[in-house]
Amino acid sequence: MDDFKTIGIIGLGLIGGSYARKLTSIGHRVVAIDINQETINYGLNEKMIIEGSTHDYSVLEQADIVISCLYPKVFIQEMPKFINHFKENCVLTDVTGVKSEVVYLIKDMLPKSIHFIPSHPMAGKEVLGVKNSNGEIFNGCNFLITPFIDSNEQAIEIIESLASDLDCKTIARITPERHDEVISFTSQLTHAIAMSLMNVVDDIEMRQFTGDSFRELTRIANIDEVLWSELFLMNKKQLVNQIDNFKDELESLKQCIQKEEIDLLKNKMITSSEKQIAFLNK
Amino acid sequence: MDDFKTIGIIGLGLIGGSYARKLTSIGHRVVAIDINQETINYGLNEKMIIEGSTHDYSVLEQADIVISCLYPKVFIQEMPKFINHFKENCVLTDVTGVKSEVVYLIKDMLPKSIHFIPSHPMAGKEVLGVKNSNGEIFNGCNFLITPFIDSNEQAIEIIESLASDLDCKTIARITPERHDEVISFTSQLTHAIAMSLMNVVDDIEMRQFTGDSFRELTRIANIDEVLWSELFLMNKKQLVNQIDNFKDELESLKQCIQKEEIDLLKNKMITSSEKQIAFLNK
Repeated sequence: MDDFKTIGIIGLGLIGGSYARKLTSIGHRVVAIDINQETINYGLNEKMIIEGSTHDYSVLEQADIVISCLYPKVFIQEMPKFINHFKENCVLTDVTGVKSEVVYLIKDMLPKSIHFIPSHPMAGKEVLGVKNSNGEIFNGCNFLITPFIDSNEQAIEIIESLASDLDCKTIARITPERHDEVISFTSQLTHAIAMSLMNVVDDIEMRQFTGDSFRELTRIANIDEVLWSELFLMNKKQLVNQIDNFKDELESLKQCIQKEEIDLLKNKMITSSEKQIAFLNK
Repeated sequence: MDDFKTIGIIGLGLIGGSYARKLTSIGHRVVAIDINQETINYGLNEKMIIEGSTHDYSVLEQADIVISCLYPKVFIQEMPKFINHFKENCVLTDVTGVKSEVVYLIKDMLPKSIHFIPSHPMAGKEVLGVKNSNGEIFNGCNFLITPFIDSNEQAIEIIESLASDLDCKTIARITPERHDEVISFTSQLTHAIAMSLMNVVDDIEMRQFTGDSFRELTRIANIDEVLWSELFLMNKKQLVNQIDNFKDELESLKQCIQKEEIDLLKNKMITSSEKQIAFLNK
């Protein structure tokens, strides 16, 4: 961003804390709301925020940008509490991993004078909480912005600047529906696969024989059940569809093996190799 | 190994070349057979081997240990050519990724004076050929030895020393059948999943939205179709079984999502998280 702003963060956890650290480090003024006084104290002690409260939402009144880092359901439920504390022409954004089921509900709550520009920094860690926050987790990640048809162009650009401030690599504008389709494949299906691969192990001795590939395929099997059960269920239709497509492809591979259709099997391997190289060189 | 030995390598490709580099670097004398004269010349120029030939198999006659680095089918097919060139009490091993369908056939070809101790260094790379070989790829990997009931203990210990020379981490003795069960899960199922995830993408635009998790889950989708079609088909029964188990687990996850059984869904996430942490700390 060209000029330094006051940024309000609602929910100072892993992601909110990481935003606070990064934005403070490059000169913005960051204020925060969190339900936990210890979290606010930690943020103040670490100099990640200059002000914060568990109950006095008026700290948000100075913010040019407000970032809700709440889990999807809490975001929908708690937003009414904050609305009267947003200053006029404030830009509100979020970090929610599903969009269609969330953003229209939020938009409907807001007065016209507040610009809600939903976004999703595709970054995360296997650990939670402000104490694990790290300003560098956004470095090189994808940042998806899902504006509405009638969104204010200047407000969108403010969120694009925010993404640049975080050092995100790809900053893209897509519709909420397309976002949810993309995410159902690139993030939710991969987590569903990792979880299932981990859960299918009932032979504890296997442990000593696993190598790099198993470790890589299951790193994200360590998953926060509160957040991810919401994300999965709020994007149910798309995710179920992705799981079905993937299962069909795996079944087709299995059929090749079972029927010893070696040419088909080799073709699948050649295709996956070519695609893997193409994806790497995206 | 306590003393330096002469080691013969049959097939100086990625794995054979990596063996040659590592074993030469710690003082052994390495000789090699390969079908390609250029490969032999490269090995000599790089000082990975001290002698090599495409046709004069008598170079193997000096070897205390012979390591076949051939693909499984070629190993079975070509072994008769080499048998008369093994010196008495020589220990023969291999690197084959499937055992039951290979090792009994090979054993039956050999005279009693040759000790065949099959093994499998669980290391690899996405690239092929001697020019990509690297003596460090075995560092920290699992090394599985599948001796026969009547194998000579001293010969087994020689192969264990070889694995130590390679700096392998876990060196384990298991039966050929257990090896194939282990491998069907820890290596073959993971490759089948990675391939299928890669192959299911028909939306090229997805590329720009993939992140770490997709990249990690598909790294091994780049797979040599000649080798891996053999490995899959030679372990067909076990692999089909693993794919079925995995598909069932994924279907069960899908059912939770579809029926919005949130407690079951959360339980699956809690279990996969706990298992992932337990596996990491193995």
